[in-house]
Amino acid sequence: MKRNIYLKTIPIAEAVSRLKAALDREGLVRVETVPSDAAMGRITARPVIARYSSPTFHSAAMDGVAIKAASSYAAREGAPVRLEPGRDFKPVNTGHPLPEGMDAVVMIENVVMDGEAALIEAPVAPWTHVRRIGEDIVATEMLLPRHRRLSAYDVGALLSCGVFDVEVYETVRLALIPTGDEVLDYTLRPEPGPGQVVESNSMMLASLARSWGFEARRMPPVKDDPESLAKAFEEALASDAHVAVLLAGSSAGSKDYSRLTMEKFGEVLVHGIAAMPGKPSLFGVCRGKLAVGAPGYPVSAAVCFEELVHPLCSWLMRTKPRTKPMLDVTLARAAPSKLGLEEFLRLAVGRVGESWVGLPLARGAGMITTMTKAQAVARIPANAEGAEAGAVVRASALVDEDDLARTLVAVGSHDNTLDLLADMLMRRDDPVRLASSHVGSMGGLTALKNGSALLAGSHLFDPESGDYNFPFLKKYLPGMDVAAVTLAIRHQGLIVPAGNPKSITGVKDLDGTGLRFINRQRGAGTRILFDYHLKKDGIDPAKVAGYANEEFTHMAVAVNVLTGAADCGLGAYAAAKALNLGFIPVARERYDLIIPRRFLDDPRIKAVLAVIRSEDFKRRIEELGGYETALTGREMRPGDGLSE
Amino acid sequence: MKRNIYLKTIPIAEAVSRLKAALDREGLVRVETVPSDAAMGRITARPVIARYSSPTFHSAAMDGVAIKAASSYAAREGAPVRLEPGRDFKPVNTGHPLPEGMDAVVMIENVVMDGEAALIEAPVAPWTHVRRIGEDIVATEMLLPRHRRLSAYDVGALLSCGVFDVEVYETVRLALIPTGDEVLDYTLRPEPGPGQVVESNSMMLASLARSWGFEARRMPPVKDDPESLAKAFEEALASDAHVAVLLAGSSAGSKDYSRLTMEKFGEVLVHGIAAMPGKPSLFGVCRGKLAVGAPGYPVSAAVCFEELVHPLCSWLMRTKPRTKPMLDVTLARAAPSKLGLEEFLRLAVGRVGESWVGLPLARGAGMITTMTKAQAVARIPANAEGAEAGAVVRASALVDEDDLARTLVAVGSHDNTLDLLADMLMRRDDPVRLASSHVGSMGGLTALKNGSALLAGSHLFDPESGDYNFPFLKKYLPGMDVAAVTLAIRHQGLIVPAGNPKSITGVKDLDGTGLRFINRQRGAGTRILFDYHLKKDGIDPAKVAGYANEEFTHMAVAVNVLTGAADCGLGAYAAAKALNLGFIPVARERYDLIIPRRFLDDPRIKAVLAVIRSEDFKRRIEELGGYETALTGREMRPGDGLSE
Repeated sequence: MKRNIYLKTIPIAEAVSRLKAALDREGLVRVETVPSDAAMGRITARPVIARYSSPTFHSAAMDGVAIKAASSYAAREGAPVRLEPGRDFKPVNTGHPLPEGMDAVVMIENVVMDGEAALIEAPVAPWTHVRRIGEDIVATEMLLPRHRRLSAYDVGALLSCGVFDVEVYETVRLALIPTGDEVLDYTLRPEPGPGQVVESNSMMLASLARSWGFEARRMPPVKDDPESLAKAFEEALASDAHVAVLLAGSSAGSKDYSRLTMEKFGEVLVHGIAAMPGKPSLFGVCRGKLAVGAPGYPVSAAVCFEELVHPLCSWLMRTKPRTKPMLDVTLARAAPSKLGLEEFLRLAVGRVGESWVGLPLARGAGMITTMTKAQAVARIPANAEGAEAGAVVRASALVDEDDLARTLVAVGSHDNTLDLLADMLMRRDDPVRLASSHVGSMGGLTALKNGSALLAGSHLFDPESGDYNFPFLKKYLPGMDVAAVTLAIRHQGLIVPAGNPKSITGVKDLDGTGLRFINRQRGAGTRILFDYHLKKDGIDPAKVAGYANEEFTHMAVAVNVLTGAADCGLGAYAAAKALNLGFIPVARERYDLIIPRRFLDDPRIKAVLAVIRSEDFKRRIEELGGYETALTGREMRPGDGLSE
Repeated sequence: MKRNIYLKTIPIAEAVSRLKAALDREGLVRVETVPSDAAMGRITARPVIARYSSPTFHSAAMDGVAIKAASSYAAREGAPVRLEPGRDFKPVNTGHPLPEGMDAVVMIENVVMDGEAALIEAPVAPWTHVRRIGEDIVATEMLLPRHRRLSAYDVGALLSCGVFDVEVYETVRLALIPTGDEVLDYTLRPEPGPGQVVESNSMMLASLARSWGFEARRMPPVKDDPESLAKAFEEALASDAHVAVLLAGSSAGSKDYSRLTMEKFGEVLVHGIAAMPGKPSLFGVCRGKLAVGAPGYPVSAAVCFEELVHPLCSWLMRTKPRTKPMLDVTLARAAPSKLGLEEFLRLAVGRVGESWVGLPLARGAGMITTMTKAQAVARIPANAEGAEAGAVVRASALVDEDDLARTLVAVGSHDNTLDLLADMLMRRDDPVRLASSHVGSMGGLTALKNGSALLAGSHLFDPESGDYNFPFLKKYLPGMDVAAVTLAIRHQGLIVPAGNPKSITGVKDLDGTGLRFINRQRGAGTRILFDYHLKKDGIDPAKVAGYANEEFTHMAVAVNVLTGAADCGLGAYAAAKALNLGFIPVARERYDLIIPRRFLDDPRIKAVLAVIRSEDFKRRIEELGGYETALTGREMRPGDGLSE
């Protein structure tokens, strides 16, 4: 097992400066001349000098009549001066040149026509309502400095001053080469078999680069063999790209050939950055171009691009990355991190009361959904061992303030109807982004207690009273005034393979039979329900094979059954149906949204209630199967149980 | 003089809702299917369901060996378990499928090879370093809700889940028609004659629309005649554009035909908005499409687009405009505004001490440079009569925080070398944006006193002592510890037409001779210099024709001479040279940057000092002519005068 060895992980800032020192920016990204009307977003290479003045002539700034100011000096209210057409005044519209000899404009509203003559009732000073030549821009003056990113307004200014072409730096161009024996070319619309994945990083990274104002071209995927890699990389270096990127293969595995490939054409300068995710990032200079080996995991690749490729390419183009707005975010959960590595922690963020509250999303570098769900990224510095729950961290916002204000953080039990809710909330004219975190019913109540969520999904069954949620609210949220609004009654049961090959009939079949069960995590309502049924049937949990194996969602349980990792698991009907699995009903239960009463006036909560009380929502829930909507949208009271 | 009449100015919000109510959004902007790899920025029309899970199989999350977790349970430090290849372990790289029968991965760093066998010194739990099928995304689950603006990350998520096409709303398309007898088509690279302007609003507005994610097409300019306008407008309505825009002609002048044109094809719903600039905005619905008549002045047109077209087109596309970060800005000068009109006030903004300080830029709707110079826009509400100097107003930032932090607000006397300085500051690796406001030397000292600027350009001559600036600093900034660093010694003189047709020899020629002088504003160092020379020559200012006519910059004075509005004016040699005018030397004077000593450590001030002390800067000043650089970059002391 021959493997590469990391050079040495170095801080991001050091990596960036090492590469800047090694690159010949002047030689790599050159000056070109482009038409000004297509220059938005480009960076000026020289100061821009106005060729024409603005205005180019004295002109009327209002619709009205042009006069000699002196001829109006005697005018008074009730004692107008009378001006004759042609000699004393000339009608003008806004933008018209001031007629020869005139030096002021009287607004049309202040002129009374008396036949052909104009009556003026107030004196005007010279140059009133006149735009004087060059008052905005004087020809020969500098209109814009160099290294300016041209805005839409700048484009207007350039054209109006007769600057029809402008010298700018080339747009930085990237060529991206997906690599790997296991990757399938998405352009062929493949169906992945075992061990195969659809290659998607190339277009995620190309899209990121484009969103930053660069050009990016994706090349066809290349197999993990040194010769093919070298050929593709050489092609990228020979192209007009300024930056050649090998995707994946940058780590230290036995098939990680990116470093080897790079060394054939130049020098590797950075192999390993002190960051998580993003650590196996590889950078060098090959044939004068910036060479990048991006990590294979999507979140690592994104960090490599955001933190290194973005500033480096901006520098090549003589500008700086646009900075994102920063937020102070209160962490809803602790976020441990490794000492010595800077950690980029993706957060779902929403306002709770006066604070931005952030839920740390899953940490795995392969978790694509942490990128689609995140509203902000916090940096945990290399010298910190993470952050405690309740700590305030600085985070850069990925969405704008308005989107953040529309985000509703929901924590608690997972249910597929929450996706329906999320979709219908986005459809509103005043959309709400539902950011749900699935930590089980008990976790949701804890979040409400800590003030880190506006609502919690809960389906906690109390065997003693036969009631839902209220006994737990009384015990765990004493003194908090909360409303429990039912989302749906749902059917829970044993999810089994299609056709139920092991002929499972119920929970009692799990008693020491060796049938492999997949459980939910501690604190999940479904786990409490399962424990209740074990107890009712007199089954010792230790006799249930797989009792210790935990998953966090119904769908994850169903996937375990689908793939044969388990013979059955307790979960909602919807999850079984989604994967075409069998379902043995065990119980009906009430799934409520628990909402502190002080949040009931929050527009986001109002939107949630409006959606779940709509007929459309009920209809779509019913279509899922395994739900009943008789109580949907109703505020429940203690003791209501499943009755209407 | 037949003119149109405004319908009635209405608040912006009312205009927007009136148009929303009248437009059939479903019929106008439809759903289309696009390849996911080109979908960044598009808005989803349906919830997106994952077709494949991620991962699609249990896979190794680390490079190492796959084992059965149970086989490691006995392992202890110093007492490893010995695993045989094939049977007990299999080498895996990150991303590889977990081999059949294995349920954990040991990192390569924790494996010691003993011949073919692997030694493991610590037990591992089942599923350690394994990415389980569907742990990120489960097929059939909702990946993204509808009405989502797709990010680069979303593009990656779509492809990796097998969603190769996505249903999105059409991108809103605008067709823009420049109009006006006076406008020249910029594509023909025209030289404007008297009364002509280069048409530039079309590309400014098209660029704005593109920056917001819309498509925009500019049509050729059309003359102010009803038939041609109707023909062009009909062409726009018949095209695939969703929005047809007539540029200019939306006001109430005798040649403002936009309303008439619109009424031929539909209904005008808004004519006049309660906003300044932007008031003569015109909106309607024509043949089911949004019809816009944008004002002709560039700043008005920009407000019309920013405040109405942007939200309306976003709504058509089922999204919201991205919001800009908001700032609390302290106004450096008062900004009066009209009661009943919402005023959009463009500001140059920079940090001074702990505050953002904003200089209100010129108010004219035709002042293009207020858009290129502004870093933020404040809204003065319709029910306010402006804002006092020192008032804190909310402003939306046009540039990012980093750019704001790099902005250096300089207030004071105008000099062309400030443009050189601005350019060279932008060229730095750590660029600084110089925002200068030209209010004269005395105005600059006042700004320092109020804490609204970091530096002031000043060339105040004290006849009594023969010294520059210090006597004034002592008088007007008592107790403030400031440094005076010379920018340059410059030559001031009478700017006269080329060839000096009136044979002017000096200031004394202005004594009652009727030669028309153009003066600088009160408080300008050049005005003080002129008054000194009048006094020295015993000339009564009342005898100088044009003494009361004031301009704010050297270049404006020169333009007055160029156009014949004045026979001469006092100004710097550089201004005369720029416009190829004659120059009669009157004085040499010292132009200093006055910097409160507490700001000397500010990185922006350090950058300024580094630039003005560079040989490159001195060389470029010398090239301008009319300057001496012997003192450039030197900190001066009282009594130094012009000596070295």
